[in-house]
Amino acid sequence: MTSHWPGLWTALLPSAPHQNMGLRERLCAALREAIRNGSLAQDSRLPATRVLAQDLSLSRVTVEAAYAQLEAEGYVRRHTGKGSFVAVQTTGKSGVRERKSRSLVPLMRLSQRGQTIVDTGGCMEPLSLQAFAAGSPDLRAFPHAVWRQLTNRRLRQDPEALMRYGDPQGRQELREAIAQYLVASRGVRCDPGQVLVLTSSQQALQLLATLLLDPGDQVWMEDPGYQGARTAFAAAGAGLEPLPVDAEGLVPDFTLPVPRLIYLTPTHQYPTGHTLSLQRRLALVDYAKRTGSWIVEDDYDSEFLYDNRPTPCLQGLDIADRVIYLGTFSKTLFPSLRLAYAVLPQALVQPMVTARSVCDGHPAQLAQAVTADFMAQGHFAAHLRLMRQLYRSRRDLMLECIQQQLPWAQVLNSSGGLQLSVLLPDGAEKELSRQAQSKGVATPSFANQQVRPAARDGWLLGFAALQPSEIREGMRVLGTLKLPAHARQR
Amino acid sequence: MTSHWPGLWTALLPSAPHQNMGLRERLCAALREAIRNGSLAQDSRLPATRVLAQDLSLSRVTVEAAYAQLEAEGYVRRHTGKGSFVAVQTTGKSGVRERKSRSLVPLMRLSQRGQTIVDTGGCMEPLSLQAFAAGSPDLRAFPHAVWRQLTNRRLRQDPEALMRYGDPQGRQELREAIAQYLVASRGVRCDPGQVLVLTSSQQALQLLATLLLDPGDQVWMEDPGYQGARTAFAAAGAGLEPLPVDAEGLVPDFTLPVPRLIYLTPTHQYPTGHTLSLQRRLALVDYAKRTGSWIVEDDYDSEFLYDNRPTPCLQGLDIADRVIYLGTFSKTLFPSLRLAYAVLPQALVQPMVTARSVCDGHPAQLAQAVTADFMAQGHFAAHLRLMRQLYRSRRDLMLECIQQQLPWAQVLNSSGGLQLSVLLPDGAEKELSRQAQSKGVATPSFANQQVRPAARDGWLLGFAALQPSEIREGMRVLGTLKLPAHARQR
Repeated sequence: MTSHWPGLWTALLPSAPHQNMGLRERLCAALREAIRNGSLAQDSRLPATRVLAQDLSLSRVTVEAAYAQLEAEGYVRRHTGKGSFVAVQTTGKSGVRERKSRSLVPLMRLSQRGQTIVDTGGCMEPLSLQAFAAGSPDLRAFPHAVWRQLTNRRLRQDPEALMRYGDPQGRQELREAIAQYLVASRGVRCDPGQVLVLTSSQQALQLLATLLLDPGDQVWMEDPGYQGARTAFAAAGAGLEPLPVDAEGLVPDFTLPVPRLIYLTPTHQYPTGHTLSLQRRLALVDYAKRTGSWIVEDDYDSEFLYDNRPTPCLQGLDIADRVIYLGTFSKTLFPSLRLAYAVLPQALVQPMVTARSVCDGHPAQLAQAVTADFMAQGHFAAHLRLMRQLYRSRRDLMLECIQQQLPWAQVLNSSGGLQLSVLLPDGAEKELSRQAQSKGVATPSFANQQVRPAARDGWLLGFAALQPSEIREGMRVLGTLKLPAHARQR
Repeated sequence: MTSHWPGLWTALLPSAPHQNMGLRERLCAALREAIRNGSLAQDSRLPATRVLAQDLSLSRVTVEAAYAQLEAEGYVRRHTGKGSFVAVQTTGKSGVRERKSRSLVPLMRLSQRGQTIVDTGGCMEPLSLQAFAAGSPDLRAFPHAVWRQLTNRRLRQDPEALMRYGDPQGRQELREAIAQYLVASRGVRCDPGQVLVLTSSQQALQLLATLLLDPGDQVWMEDPGYQGARTAFAAAGAGLEPLPVDAEGLVPDFTLPVPRLIYLTPTHQYPTGHTLSLQRRLALVDYAKRTGSWIVEDDYDSEFLYDNRPTPCLQGLDIADRVIYLGTFSKTLFPSLRLAYAVLPQALVQPMVTARSVCDGHPAQLAQAVTADFMAQGHFAAHLRLMRQLYRSRRDLMLECIQQQLPWAQVLNSSGGLQLSVLLPDGAEKELSRQAQSKGVATPSFANQQVRPAARDGWLLGFAALQPSEIREGMRVLGTLKLPAHARQR
């Protein structure tokens, strides 16, 4: 008998792949496999449980249980007194009448929209915190003990309430804290009913793109500008109109066809750092009011301006409800918190909440509750004050180092943010970045943020998460780079 | 002077809307508002700081700071010796040349896809835990102390590592734990590289719909079937083909046009509770292999089968890589954890990770790390064993109560799950539900899960989260309902 069952022996040996299953499960798996691959054909008779038990040195109860399980699953048919038989034919024709005239689709074809998304290359955030990689906040300076205490309090207090399904718009207490913060600090006009809590501004951009943009709709983008937004709008099939940026921010061109949406980082343009001038703000808000274009104001890092108070947001100027305001806790608290927010015109609240529920249900409740406590108890304001001071001193050190060690680099704007924009001699970026990388220093390129070919060479150097010694060492390395000959000649 | 500045006085009074701002900010806000609404025209001269300070009983430093801020923002132009002037005209024509021939779009028009999503009504999960509302696990029986300890350990150990941006595919340790669990318990064929961690199976369905379905593509659905899946596929513009369900699960019709995707809940069909027979599994897997259709296997609650061990999953039968397997921690752990997983054919891994990164970046790291610890330390398996016992006893109590008190109700299938499907006399559901609701008992209707009009009347009664006393009391109330006359006559 044994010679007919080599597969069973193998499966039951300790070295078999299913070794962390019980004996019964391993016997079931081996029998299923034998039926599936045709070793046991339909209607063939299985050995009696007594025989197989003896043969495999198993208890008869185990074999009996395995047969019962396989019968329940439909692999085996049992007739009292007659024995157990293979109940199915698992290979070859199913014998069912089938429509003939079907055209087979290529096995891996994605949808058109899916292919567009894959072609964007996605939005991969930098996982490294080395100099000068990431636009990350300093997580070492985070008040971990406070956060842990607040988390514990919530986990002890009423854990069940935070484990249930939650409101797809976000917890009321957090929406209140966000609205209060935005009204007081950013000049946003809103009440908590307009706030939508999301996992990230990327999710906000993706939802807005899905909800507002038909394929072919025009979107005005700052160029250079934020790649994550470009990706979301491109994924929706929109036509992107890259507009130049000067010292007053985006240069609008009202002679262009009316766009469906205008994407702006007006407080601190990404990546140049410029602030959109009041004149242009008013012109854009007025334009949106008259044309019905949407303006998306991505206020991603206004909390970190070091020389002046940040300009109040564009949304506060908008009396026609055309501005959608976005902010995130990824930079003010930490990236893996997965909390961001949109302030929506009333008419968009219900559509966005519905779309959000279809996309991923609701945001995690514990993270929301702890964040709300952190804000309500004043920790958020205190943390921002401290981080502003800390990052300002690091910004100053960056400027000092660049001046001393990178004579060929020109700081574009140093008013704020977690990274510094630096212009390089034309055509030098690739070679300088190659040298830097070989010496273990990351120098994120402007090129990733630009669409038009005539764009400038430059770096976007993350500094906020770095200790002074790490900044000095990174800058020392950059100081040893050799400017390529063709760049020196210009 | 004061008479010219009523708005300022109002803004500075304690009852004004900006009362939680500082004096400087309140003065700025009032001046901005006056400039915006035209009370202060372009080029008009602002009062000298000394005069205004006296007039408003403010320190001159405050007024000076406010003017400086407004100058930085572009509202005000200051000339030493001459005074401060309004720098912008904020109402009326901007004077910029504009394209004339634009057609104004309706202000609130959503995109076609956006309107489709809004029209689905979204996926609102039941927020109530009253009898017999939700398909929720029992959160009171959750091992809160263990979870809190694991959370604390991670928050103490290396908090920074869990606060950074993370891998959009999910943490390696969690993907390993999930793969190990699925191979051993569900017969899934996979390695951790095929596992994608998501916030919810809803997110998985939405991403798959976006990536795989073009508008008009056919999708086979079980009917009655899971509404969240219908919503995701409808939102992608797919054509839904509702197929009937019998005691062997979905009844496939291979004479229909080849669908792009087949959505199945084969282990425990939602909501009927039937298991897809082996013969049909094999036929469907074979069909998908030959036609190139995708099969989405939503294994949403196989952990909670009470009489037999669950049938191994469909994905394990698939040697042609056409089956996408979905599972969730919403029912095995808790809904607001926001963690679920997909096991993807190799060829879909990179496209799905890219699409995921565009949608919302990456899943929260702390929740992933704690879940991985919970699994690796054996708590997950122990919790499932306990919950199975607990829910089985509650299921038994439900059956007993139904038999005793609801003679007009017929249990459809009671093999498992967090809710029980009950058939009602034809045409009685609406009236019975109305009566139940008026007595404070929720009776989720089958109707929400059905597409075809000929469908049966029935309820889907959630019981797993309820204490025995709550079950008894809810059933006692249902026992007092009066069957409508037309239903009694049939």
